[in-house]
Amino acid sequence: MSTMLQLRSLVKANGELELSLAEVPVPAPRHDEVLVRVEATPINPSDLGLMFGAADLGTATQSGTSARPVVTARIPDARMKIMAGRVDRSMPVGNEGAGVVVAAGGSDAAQALLGQVVAIFGGALYAQYRCVRVADCLALPAGATPAEGASCFVNPLTALGMVETMRREGHRALVHTAAASNLGQMLNRICLKDGVGLVNIVRAREQEDLLRGMGARHVCNSTVPTFAGELTEAIAETGATLAFDAVGGGRLAGQILHCMETVLGRSAKEYSRYGSTTHKQVYVYGMLDTGPTVLDRSFGFAWGVGGWLLWPFLQKIGPEGTARLRERIVAELRTTFASHYAKEISLAEALRLEEIAVYGRRATGAKYLINPNRAGAVDPA
Amino acid sequence: MSTMLQLRSLVKANGELELSLAEVPVPAPRHDEVLVRVEATPINPSDLGLMFGAADLGTATQSGTSARPVVTARIPDARMKIMAGRVDRSMPVGNEGAGVVVAAGGSDAAQALLGQVVAIFGGALYAQYRCVRVADCLALPAGATPAEGASCFVNPLTALGMVETMRREGHRALVHTAAASNLGQMLNRICLKDGVGLVNIVRAREQEDLLRGMGARHVCNSTVPTFAGELTEAIAETGATLAFDAVGGGRLAGQILHCMETVLGRSAKEYSRYGSTTHKQVYVYGMLDTGPTVLDRSFGFAWGVGGWLLWPFLQKIGPEGTARLRERIVAELRTTFASHYAKEISLAEALRLEEIAVYGRRATGAKYLINPNRAGAVDPA
Repeated sequence: MSTMLQLRSLVKANGELELSLAEVPVPAPRHDEVLVRVEATPINPSDLGLMFGAADLGTATQSGTSARPVVTARIPDARMKIMAGRVDRSMPVGNEGAGVVVAAGGSDAAQALLGQVVAIFGGALYAQYRCVRVADCLALPAGATPAEGASCFVNPLTALGMVETMRREGHRALVHTAAASNLGQMLNRICLKDGVGLVNIVRAREQEDLLRGMGARHVCNSTVPTFAGELTEAIAETGATLAFDAVGGGRLAGQILHCMETVLGRSAKEYSRYGSTTHKQVYVYGMLDTGPTVLDRSFGFAWGVGGWLLWPFLQKIGPEGTARLRERIVAELRTTFASHYAKEISLAEALRLEEIAVYGRRATGAKYLINPNRAGAVDPA
Repeated sequence: MSTMLQLRSLVKANGELELSLAEVPVPAPRHDEVLVRVEATPINPSDLGLMFGAADLGTATQSGTSARPVVTARIPDARMKIMAGRVDRSMPVGNEGAGVVVAAGGSDAAQALLGQVVAIFGGALYAQYRCVRVADCLALPAGATPAEGASCFVNPLTALGMVETMRREGHRALVHTAAASNLGQMLNRICLKDGVGLVNIVRAREQEDLLRGMGARHVCNSTVPTFAGELTEAIAETGATLAFDAVGGGRLAGQILHCMETVLGRSAKEYSRYGSTTHKQVYVYGMLDTGPTVLDRSFGFAWGVGGWLLWPFLQKIGPEGTARLRERIVAELRTTFASHYAKEISLAEALRLEEIAVYGRRATGAKYLINPNRAGAVDPA
């Protein structure tokens, strides 16, 4: 093998987004690196963001061949401004994945990984091979498959990061929105295991049932008329003063703060027009609704809303804190941190409009797994 | 003297707000307390909030006598909910003020204050007398008048608290909105003296002129079409990544974050769809616009918006930190922390509709000072 396929996303200055499979050289591992044959890499919301940028998927068209498809779509003029930083820079995609170490550099640590199944993180995973530093590999337990280890980083570390943030910032329970997601299910398992109160907010009856079936104690459906009252009671029962919000836009973040303040006001001993003195916090970590966040501030002055991202959080807890989280992930890979996929596809299939129409919706239970070396995938080398 | 007048604000269950002057006993100071004859107490925005609650001032009517006026106004039904905590509880008003110590408890510290002019904080200052603990008094320098010391706490501590918050949270310059206020002018003097970059945002040409006349280097008028560009350049020149916002509602907070992100993006070395990694913060400390805060989140993920109040801040810095700020206020009482008032009125005049129409507007340069023992004020005792 001398070349390999790598999925690329390119925003052109004329407002066209182009997705294609580039044929690029297979890298050779240096002293402390290994070459991994990627066999499983999930399509996370964060990958979709980089892959499709601000393009309108309704305008997507297909060209190329079935083995080397090309997808193009229009980016609305008004949204090109936020794409400025990546115009004319062909970008590889794929935050995380897993595979088999097929070549290794000279270091003992690298050589020790030869033949092993490892999980890796760091971008450019939508490719047949990926060369990484040994320090960035997570060796999976004996018998684990690449598919089992494909989602070892983003969702598990994010879910653990939420609970860790809760503890570090002095809260004792959590609210989570879009809570039936793969990430939400994982968070639910962590909280059940650790005895942490969790209020799950979902948007559909089936999602309610799904989470309750998994043992979730507090599930509130934001589409029913009794939502505000139910959310308030769930917050009262858990004592949650921190929320992680994947939605971002609309009034939900403010509504959560309002319900928290209602609960805190119940135990207030005297009237203060500044509201409760207990700090209430919502961290926005997703963009399911890209519209504006609307806060009516009916929740006193002890509140905060802000962005939250995994990587700054990991920097904050440092290498030791991160290592501790990674150890837990490996230990509970098949239980707490198990991921489920609706379908496994090849790189070429990832660029078919009918597949994009499904995985691009980001719907609950529709997570896809790419196997860049899937039988039937065209290997040009 | 056995009784005194005290201004009271009462929200009735029927949705009526009633302001009146109650005749109440003059308290006797305990061992470590002093009795202060209040001679100057400002009408701050925070006082207006407690005084008028959620009432619609357009519905205000007057009754009673000229010496003991009563003002009533309607509270819209929709806003009674946020008044629930204070219904049928007659509340005294007036956060801060200054006056002469006319009686003292037995402790040496209390006795030492007899005859002195002191500034005090703690509510119920819209009254002819106020009994306070010695620890809550700030003895003014020799020769200082009650009027000079009346606004010793709220504005000076808030302005100093903003600069202190900036330093503690690792920022190096500030943005301030509604910046021509008494508080804003004070903040401008502190920043000029301490060499801290300050971007002043105002809403009128006269306010621009006022601040520039006071030496302000960066003044941006949010009502002109070139505002966004000017704000961006001022942020670039100062390096401000923290803003204190008195407005609260609307798009201004988000616009400030957007301009900060634009500046940070200029020095970004590579594209990240998560935006800059530098944290940008807006603290909302006022409610000039009671409408919702609208954030379009066009500023990456490293951001926060939250409430900020003086008293939790002082708790955070502790008694020693607070004492340090108080010392500076006394030392610079006639310079950095000088306040100016449009008019001095009596307690009875504070309840005249024509005066309410002026000071209730919270307009720049229209701050009023109440002297509860003003010559001509009716003293019932």
